[in-house]
Amino acid sequence: MAQDIDFWFTFGSPAGYLASHRIDEIAVRHGRKARWRPFNIRSVLAQEGIKPNILYERKGRYTRHDWERTARLRGIPFRLPDPFLRPTLPAMTVFYWVADELGEGPAKAFAQAVMRAYFVDNAEIDEPDALALIAEGCGIDGDKARMAIEDRTYRERLDAATTEASRIGVWGSPFVIVDGEPFWGEDRLDQVDLWLTRGGW
Amino acid sequence: MAQDIDFWFTFGSPAGYLASHRIDEIAVRHGRKARWRPFNIRSVLAQEGIKPNILYERKGRYTRHDWERTARLRGIPFRLPDPFLRPTLPAMTVFYWVADELGEGPAKAFAQAVMRAYFVDNAEIDEPDALALIAEGCGIDGDKARMAIEDRTYRERLDAATTEASRIGVWGSPFVIVDGEPFWGEDRLDQVDLWLTRGGW
Repeated sequence: MAQDIDFWFTFGSPAGYLASHRIDEIAVRHGRKARWRPFNIRSVLAQEGIKPNILYERKGRYTRHDWERTARLRGIPFRLPDPFLRPTLPAMTVFYWVADELGEGPAKAFAQAVMRAYFVDNAEIDEPDALALIAEGCGIDGDKARMAIEDRTYRERLDAATTEASRIGVWGSPFVIVDGEPFWGEDRLDQVDLWLTRGGW
Repeated sequence: MAQDIDFWFTFGSPAGYLASHRIDEIAVRHGRKARWRPFNIRSVLAQEGIKPNILYERKGRYTRHDWERTARLRGIPFRLPDPFLRPTLPAMTVFYWVADELGEGPAKAFAQAVMRAYFVDNAEIDEPDALALIAEGCGIDGDKARMAIEDRTYRERLDAATTEASRIGVWGSPFVIVDGEPFWGEDRLDQVDLWLTRGGW
């Protein structure tokens, strides 16, 4: 059976948010499944000596413009959060709890709801109350979700994902791995699609 | 009459080299002309606090892989030079001399010949002798090309291009500007094409 596609991303990444709208469609069309793997990108970027894009002067200005333009092109609602760069570790910890407790489908739905709340409604996604509310909107128990934020088991799951990402050379969001082949960036999803069609080149 | 498209790049950039194979075709298909504008990217990257991609550990490894894979996909010969990151200011200075003396067509031919020599034949493109030879291969007087390397007029032309790039927010290679709209990266040429087709979105 064909291997899952790994979709590495972080909840705070606009490009990851944009890619999350396409990755499952691409995978399914090729008879694959996308495994969503949130990780702590800041930790890996710090190892690389790279700041979040938005903190660079020219690159930050351009990147913001590129996110907005690409969102318009794909018809995806997007507004850069203000303040941007809120902590996303609480939300990503809850993701791993949802995945364990309820399965991958609900975990993906929760991830998308968090990103939509952040990138459309400017929600305070680092606040337990906001996360509980988002969980409830997905039919997930809000109190349990709130408790998961502080659950060492799931924080460790997130840490393990981050360690694996760093080890295998994943340093950006989104980062897609197809049969060992790495693709970085929303703008490389076309190559992901083509790679799956041709089985490489 | 429609404005020229500005194609900012640097001779030492694999992504710029790859894009140089497509940009004129895209421009011409939309009744435009691409104006090639080599600049000193290291100077702008230093202002941004960014190192050349290859000098990052994970990002460097990935980027190299991406260049090789994209070159294969497009049927463009490519081999990462060894040593990489040779100085390109001499060659780009000669470019501006060729553009002045012989016009844009010969300047583009010279740029492509330098990049091919670097990215295919691993030539020492920072050496005056190598540059003279490359110039001659384009039907350009080698001795005059060699003299142009030290010509303040053309070094200043290059410096002025770099200052302009920095001022208008160009910080990567390739960087394409269509009617004021900026697009960074070889992987955004599809959006350049679409932007020209639709007149924006």
